[in-house]
Amino acid sequence: MYRTHTCGELRSTDLDKQVTLAGWVQTIRKFGSITFIDLRDRYGITQLLFNEQLNTILDANPLGREFVLQISGKVSERSSKNVNIPTGEIEVLVSDLKVLNRSAVPPFTIQDDTDGGDDLRMKYRFLDLRRNAVKKNIELRYAVNRAARNYLHLHNFIDIETPFLIKSTPEGARDFVVPSRMNPGEFYALPQSPQTFKQLLMVSGYDRYYQVVKCFRDEDLRADRQPEFTQIDCEMAFVEQEDILQMFEGMVKFIFKEVKGIDYSETVKRITWEESMWTYGNDKPDIRFDMKLGILKSISKPSETIIPEGAFKIFDDAELVVGIAAKACADYTRKQLDELTDWVKRPQIGMTGLIYCKYNADGTLKSSVDKFFDESKLKEWAIKTNAQPGDVIFILAGREERTLKAISSLRLYMGERLGLRKAEEFKLLWVTDFPLFEYDDENNRWVARHHPFTSPKPEQVQTMINNDPAISNANEYLQHPYASIKANAYDMVLNGNEIGGGSIRIFQRDLQEKMFAALGMSKQEAQHKFGFLLGAFEYGAPPHGGIAFGFDRLCAILGGSESIRDFIAFPKNNTGRDVMIDAPSTIDLKQLEELQIKIDLKAG
Amino acid sequence: MYRTHTCGELRSTDLDKQVTLAGWVQTIRKFGSITFIDLRDRYGITQLLFNEQLNTILDANPLGREFVLQISGKVSERSSKNVNIPTGEIEVLVSDLKVLNRSAVPPFTIQDDTDGGDDLRMKYRFLDLRRNAVKKNIELRYAVNRAARNYLHLHNFIDIETPFLIKSTPEGARDFVVPSRMNPGEFYALPQSPQTFKQLLMVSGYDRYYQVVKCFRDEDLRADRQPEFTQIDCEMAFVEQEDILQMFEGMVKFIFKEVKGIDYSETVKRITWEESMWTYGNDKPDIRFDMKLGILKSISKPSETIIPEGAFKIFDDAELVVGIAAKACADYTRKQLDELTDWVKRPQIGMTGLIYCKYNADGTLKSSVDKFFDESKLKEWAIKTNAQPGDVIFILAGREERTLKAISSLRLYMGERLGLRKAEEFKLLWVTDFPLFEYDDENNRWVARHHPFTSPKPEQVQTMINNDPAISNANEYLQHPYASIKANAYDMVLNGNEIGGGSIRIFQRDLQEKMFAALGMSKQEAQHKFGFLLGAFEYGAPPHGGIAFGFDRLCAILGGSESIRDFIAFPKNNTGRDVMIDAPSTIDLKQLEELQIKIDLKAG
Repeated sequence: MYRTHTCGELRSTDLDKQVTLAGWVQTIRKFGSITFIDLRDRYGITQLLFNEQLNTILDANPLGREFVLQISGKVSERSSKNVNIPTGEIEVLVSDLKVLNRSAVPPFTIQDDTDGGDDLRMKYRFLDLRRNAVKKNIELRYAVNRAARNYLHLHNFIDIETPFLIKSTPEGARDFVVPSRMNPGEFYALPQSPQTFKQLLMVSGYDRYYQVVKCFRDEDLRADRQPEFTQIDCEMAFVEQEDILQMFEGMVKFIFKEVKGIDYSETVKRITWEESMWTYGNDKPDIRFDMKLGILKSISKPSETIIPEGAFKIFDDAELVVGIAAKACADYTRKQLDELTDWVKRPQIGMTGLIYCKYNADGTLKSSVDKFFDESKLKEWAIKTNAQPGDVIFILAGREERTLKAISSLRLYMGERLGLRKAEEFKLLWVTDFPLFEYDDENNRWVARHHPFTSPKPEQVQTMINNDPAISNANEYLQHPYASIKANAYDMVLNGNEIGGGSIRIFQRDLQEKMFAALGMSKQEAQHKFGFLLGAFEYGAPPHGGIAFGFDRLCAILGGSESIRDFIAFPKNNTGRDVMIDAPSTIDLKQLEELQIKIDLKAG
Repeated sequence: MYRTHTCGELRSTDLDKQVTLAGWVQTIRKFGSITFIDLRDRYGITQLLFNEQLNTILDANPLGREFVLQISGKVSERSSKNVNIPTGEIEVLVSDLKVLNRSAVPPFTIQDDTDGGDDLRMKYRFLDLRRNAVKKNIELRYAVNRAARNYLHLHNFIDIETPFLIKSTPEGARDFVVPSRMNPGEFYALPQSPQTFKQLLMVSGYDRYYQVVKCFRDEDLRADRQPEFTQIDCEMAFVEQEDILQMFEGMVKFIFKEVKGIDYSETVKRITWEESMWTYGNDKPDIRFDMKLGILKSISKPSETIIPEGAFKIFDDAELVVGIAAKACADYTRKQLDELTDWVKRPQIGMTGLIYCKYNADGTLKSSVDKFFDESKLKEWAIKTNAQPGDVIFILAGREERTLKAISSLRLYMGERLGLRKAEEFKLLWVTDFPLFEYDDENNRWVARHHPFTSPKPEQVQTMINNDPAISNANEYLQHPYASIKANAYDMVLNGNEIGGGSIRIFQRDLQEKMFAALGMSKQEAQHKFGFLLGAFEYGAPPHGGIAFGFDRLCAILGGSESIRDFIAFPKNNTGRDVMIDAPSTIDLKQLEELQIKIDLKAG
């Protein structure tokens, strides 16, 4: 062993001990004939003091930042103590020094406020990982991993590894594939999730399964997506939805306690997908703040409409008119309101304008559409949006889907602006009763909203079985019985982010076959892709369900960050490259020949 | 929840309780108007009793093996108790029955002594996994996983996930590769191990790293090899070999204790590679029994030779003559000796014959080469092989490498025959000081015995740096200074199986470059493949080393099996196929087009 103690360990109770430390040079400070060096390792920083005699050696062999040293010396009391670090009461009077390795000058400083840009830090990720700001993320990730495992172990779950070289069954996302040398012309696929295997394990009787497992999706990477990502993947047999919700809100609470020291004792709220969409405009609402939607007009929910037809053309033309009340913003200036108008008009939001209505402190109401609506009408809007004197109401109007999305974005934006999305506040929410199907207008067919293994609500099984999935009139797909089938599916939402999602599964062969057919899969195709699962359902499959948590995202949110990349030791960039190791890369012709494949680049 | 209790839970202390159970029908036994059903789940078996009234229902809707039932009823005392199972004192008087799912007749019985052959059980692996014999392996695997993690956690190790989509750097084994759609013409590789990443983590300062991680090797599968396998992968910084040996024999002892209840308190023996080869004939000796080699003649170790030249042509022609003493086998019959002779002549062993020498109980010696050697000579053999009266000495002669291998195989075979390899006895051993290089006669160059990151013994670093790796005369490669360089490498051996291996790594850029050059890699090639590691070594790389345990193998040995496949939930067969899901398989043309690759099957 190169050391007797770590750099985070020594205290004033260790005074006069002879110790040996090893670590990296963080800083060098020369004062005349003595030198102070801060030596850093994973555990902390210890101040070293080099006296006159050793300084001669340092002068002859200058040290630099990030040199690796092994030193011996005596623990001494510091003359000026540093109360900000645990070792701040002591220093080590160095008697012996060995340079274990030299370092070139690092391309950026190894400090919280580093001078390195993103690209540089990714290229030298091994140096970036030395920074305390990154290290604490990696440590938090481990703590979450450990807490999740401990909770699941306590509850009789068993970690069972499922294979990585599986079969390509591209449904939604694209598979990464792996050519098989031993079976030329054939390919394995990397799993998008262990979904079918964990269901097989339920059929096999392992009634509580978990895995912290890498998954792979070959998607065009949006910001903050990674081609490989990690799931906490879980499944249970002989359970209903209620059992799963309780088990896994328990897990997340356990993680809060273990990792953040937070007692999350309150009951986790639940909301149906339908209610979530009409209350917050999306299916993963941030409930750290209220600011609920007020529907002023809706063609889907005509009973909510309070705006008279013919008063205002823009409202007349809109499918949806919806408002939110921003607390204590009635004094917003023209400039502020113009800024917000520009914000909703950006292409990402895509609205044509923003209507406001100030609910002044004196109880009067003043809006940008005063020409069309009198104060009694505006008062109704205030009631709908739950506005109080001093608030401002923002109103958007347009096509239903886009407007809901826009008001939801505006709500989050205003929440952010008003400081309502507090980094250290955590609010969990279950969103339930998702639609089972989504309509794919490109192909005029149904696609599974969650995945093809999700079961409908028990009371809607017959609706599914007894109806032909074919959509005869594309314009009236909403009238098809399938449009209203709800799934036994649930998402866990934390601070406006989906951190987990799952469902009760289909476990009957005939219902599963109907589902495949509903998704436009032929019998042959279903058999080719999922024959093993259909087969397994013939041999006593138990009722079961599960959930998968996005481990990277969960860690990021617990760490107070929006970026999962900060919580992955070696992430890839937006084109799927690891710029540090320079992967992917070309491979040898010999490898291609052995695999019996050829590169076939498209022109251009 | 579908149940109030599991099928392994109820005891006589639960008498008269109303309970609900769910599980699979193990057996059905009808006695007149009553029926007994054994209901099985992951936790055990509970006997159900159906009275006359319910029997009517059973008669109308017959149950079968592996049907999934939910029953309610009252816990009652059994009239005839079964002391062999924990629930054997009670039964449940069923009052309510629900068939949750039916089952076709399974293709083999779900019992320890199943009637299903290997192929059938693999195709229906989801049913095979229901058998208790397989379930206990999967549970043992989890227990080993958990124990390893707990030990490493206690010792400040941190689990850090390394990427799966990395860069192809084919050294020894072939990489599995993954075409990149986003970077056409380029490929990722699946990791053969996280080797370089864990070393980078040491450079980053995470001085104790671990991972239980899947690795991939595209090799022609020998029996009991899997294309994907799991390692317990560990690395430490600021350590020497001694630190690693102590840390990880501690881990294995901890696993023994946690998983098997075994206090392995004795010190783990250590042996050098050299000594192991000459004492046991191989580098992973089974030391549960002695039967050490006696060298009678060796051209490599002439001082050991006790056989006079010219006495016996076969010995004269041999590079090596070596014997072992089989305890109390002096009374072996002609037939038994002939059988053993046939055994060593099999192509797998490849000897031309077997010489024996009986050390009779009366102290006389009698051999198959009495013509050539008098009894005093035979007595010398007995001393060399440590034979006692009553033993038989088996002697093999031939080329050194083959004969060592053969005597090692014979030793294991005799150990097996004589019952010396006890399944429930566990003997650990460290083998150290492996050669750094092996000679590749096909290409007349050096290859790394462990891997290119293994450091030479400190005292041999200069030998490595100061000599040209080129081998001018292929016949005299043994005289090249590189042939005698020993590595800072170590294997952990359990009962004759290598369960782990590792080394102290090179951490200096110049030495690593010399190593790549020694392995015949050009500067450009080294830079292309491992530039990131060489680069990292410039920025303060600490001394470090590590080890990786073959997790599948470790589990198999602890479970008393020779086959790792029994300890993998979803294994592949010898051609790398998963016969259950039928992978690998063909993929859609669209997928190939998107990846911009083509299948290019060789003729024939």
